[in-house]
Amino acid sequence: MLEEKDPFVYAHEKEKEIVWMSQNTNQIKTSPKIMESMIKALEEGKHNLYPHRDGILGFKDDILKDLGLKGEGFDALITNGGIEGTYTLTRSMLDEGDNVIASDPSFMPIHHQIELCGAEPKEIDIYKDPYKLSIDEVNEAVNGDTKMILLIDPLNPLGSSYTEEEVKGISQIAEDNDLLLIHDITYRDFAYEHTLASEFVPERTIFACSFSKNVGFAGMRLGALVMPEEYSDILHKYRTNVLSANVIAQVGAKKALETKEEWLPDMLEQSRKNQKIIKEAVEEIPDVHLPVYPSSTNMFVIDVEKTGLDPQKIQKKLLYEHDVFVRGGNYLSKTAGDKFIRVSFTVPEEGARKFAEKLALVMDDLR
Amino acid sequence: MLEEKDPFVYAHEKEKEIVWMSQNTNQIKTSPKIMESMIKALEEGKHNLYPHRDGILGFKDDILKDLGLKGEGFDALITNGGIEGTYTLTRSMLDEGDNVIASDPSFMPIHHQIELCGAEPKEIDIYKDPYKLSIDEVNEAVNGDTKMILLIDPLNPLGSSYTEEEVKGISQIAEDNDLLLIHDITYRDFAYEHTLASEFVPERTIFACSFSKNVGFAGMRLGALVMPEEYSDILHKYRTNVLSANVIAQVGAKKALETKEEWLPDMLEQSRKNQKIIKEAVEEIPDVHLPVYPSSTNMFVIDVEKTGLDPQKIQKKLLYEHDVFVRGGNYLSKTAGDKFIRVSFTVPEEGARKFAEKLALVMDDLR
Repeated sequence: MLEEKDPFVYAHEKEKEIVWMSQNTNQIKTSPKIMESMIKALEEGKHNLYPHRDGILGFKDDILKDLGLKGEGFDALITNGGIEGTYTLTRSMLDEGDNVIASDPSFMPIHHQIELCGAEPKEIDIYKDPYKLSIDEVNEAVNGDTKMILLIDPLNPLGSSYTEEEVKGISQIAEDNDLLLIHDITYRDFAYEHTLASEFVPERTIFACSFSKNVGFAGMRLGALVMPEEYSDILHKYRTNVLSANVIAQVGAKKALETKEEWLPDMLEQSRKNQKIIKEAVEEIPDVHLPVYPSSTNMFVIDVEKTGLDPQKIQKKLLYEHDVFVRGGNYLSKTAGDKFIRVSFTVPEEGARKFAEKLALVMDDLR
Repeated sequence: MLEEKDPFVYAHEKEKEIVWMSQNTNQIKTSPKIMESMIKALEEGKHNLYPHRDGILGFKDDILKDLGLKGEGFDALITNGGIEGTYTLTRSMLDEGDNVIASDPSFMPIHHQIELCGAEPKEIDIYKDPYKLSIDEVNEAVNGDTKMILLIDPLNPLGSSYTEEEVKGISQIAEDNDLLLIHDITYRDFAYEHTLASEFVPERTIFACSFSKNVGFAGMRLGALVMPEEYSDILHKYRTNVLSANVIAQVGAKKALETKEEWLPDMLEQSRKNQKIIKEAVEEIPDVHLPVYPSSTNMFVIDVEKTGLDPQKIQKKLLYEHDVFVRGGNYLSKTAGDKFIRVSFTVPEEGARKFAEKLALVMDDLR
């Protein structure tokens, strides 16, 4: 029964029947104002013209304002998705032989981008309490070839986040060792509290931003790098796209920033409610637990190590038998990938309930 | 009166009043079926999900079919705009010290991408009859460091295109010297006749494709690389975006390929009519001429050298006094940029007529 077809092809073929919990996408209904802005932009033919090379007018400022960085010596580069930001950043800043302090588990495509530069991600094992980088371990990992620290905060896939003290401590390491601090804040809007590294080392902090998660724009491919002005030239030099990013996405994201207080609280409420539904179901299943709860992102990890079950098998059974798509850990960790599945819960509530019900069933079946 | 504001900021601020002839965009009305497909995709929430990493299902095949290359040993990589394709291509294939046979005038951002790799574009002067690369000159320019030939065909900005014999001859040079042939076919659909280099050297030809011009998707940022399967792995390895390109753009472009015969002929008819309107106006202006007519693209060059006027001044006066946006040649040529303006004519007919009227006026004023 466990088909060997590419799970993504399978899921896309059945797109509307699938509960999509596999890629931290956000399918909680996009607010009407954002939708209307995009449809109007299409109807007006905005898709026919290139946006300004620095993005649609005013958008860059809105991004800086959203972070409280307008007028603070920062610039922004709008990119086709957050991942294009880190692609440009790594190519601009890394040379052969450099290393980057990072974690495992992590968002591994950035590690691949580091390797494309002939540089090395130094992956600190964080699949242990407190499930995030510690100041001491980062300090120990730095050596003469270290060029930057990659601080994904809140953290994909674990859902952990860093306290103000921790961000300060890691910032100090960047300062002491003349490093760049890459603060990947893709999931910032999901956090209960969040501290920007620019509070401590503004001249060393580059932010990787995305509109994929908070406003649910995964398919629109829109993100940004936010950098101290002195790094603006080098990052723009290596940008992947001098013709900017999709204009309809920019129109929608600008509207999302302008109306954030109208849609963000409701979205967070649903996300946190779904998180709780799943937590309660997990607690009923023997030998399974949540390393991090509550999660500061729109996902968390469910540890299944003690069950002895293969997370890939759980993924497959959930997908091919129940149309629920989660992700086995191997995509997110080189060393702990056989211990967990990752589940994102920014889905309509019935999706979260379906997963909660089917997980117990599938675990039971597999044992 | 000639303001010194960034012309693009000025034009975007007055977006709807401007006749946009500056970036070869296509503002001839997008067909209703294409529009409906994109609006429906938004309404269905497709923007919430990542597309499949290789593009929405079936799209890649449609791109290959459009070129007659389905089942012929080719693969495609869908990119956020054509320019991301050449970015990936140059990074994948070029090393420090390599050179690439190219032209001047040209689409210079590709030359910049070549330079980012530490490689050199060897720019053959083509601002002379027949206003395109000749087989002999390409042959002479090749040396031991040459890695590829960049064949933009039809050619931005001149509007010239290559005959079957010429494509064959240049292909033979690639074969004789073990080179890649980059066939940039962004404007292929505008050509009266067109020959793909894959007819002669399929194993050496990589196509750079774009949806910006034919279907008017400049603002959607969608393109593709089409490569022999043996180059698929290396090009995918260096791709800028493992999460693919904007999904709404892909939905619209797939519909555009499926319905091409319903919209392309009408669009071409209007484009060619506009071209003729402008040609007739140019013929009335003393000391001004069209190096290439008819153009095989949606633009051509108007040579103003004999007038002694600065193309930048013509650009500014047309923009700031008449809301007509064309481009002075310096953006497109390092050596001949003071001799011409470039005008794209895929605009509503009244725009072409306005330009035709205002050009004479502006030239008269400036003399």
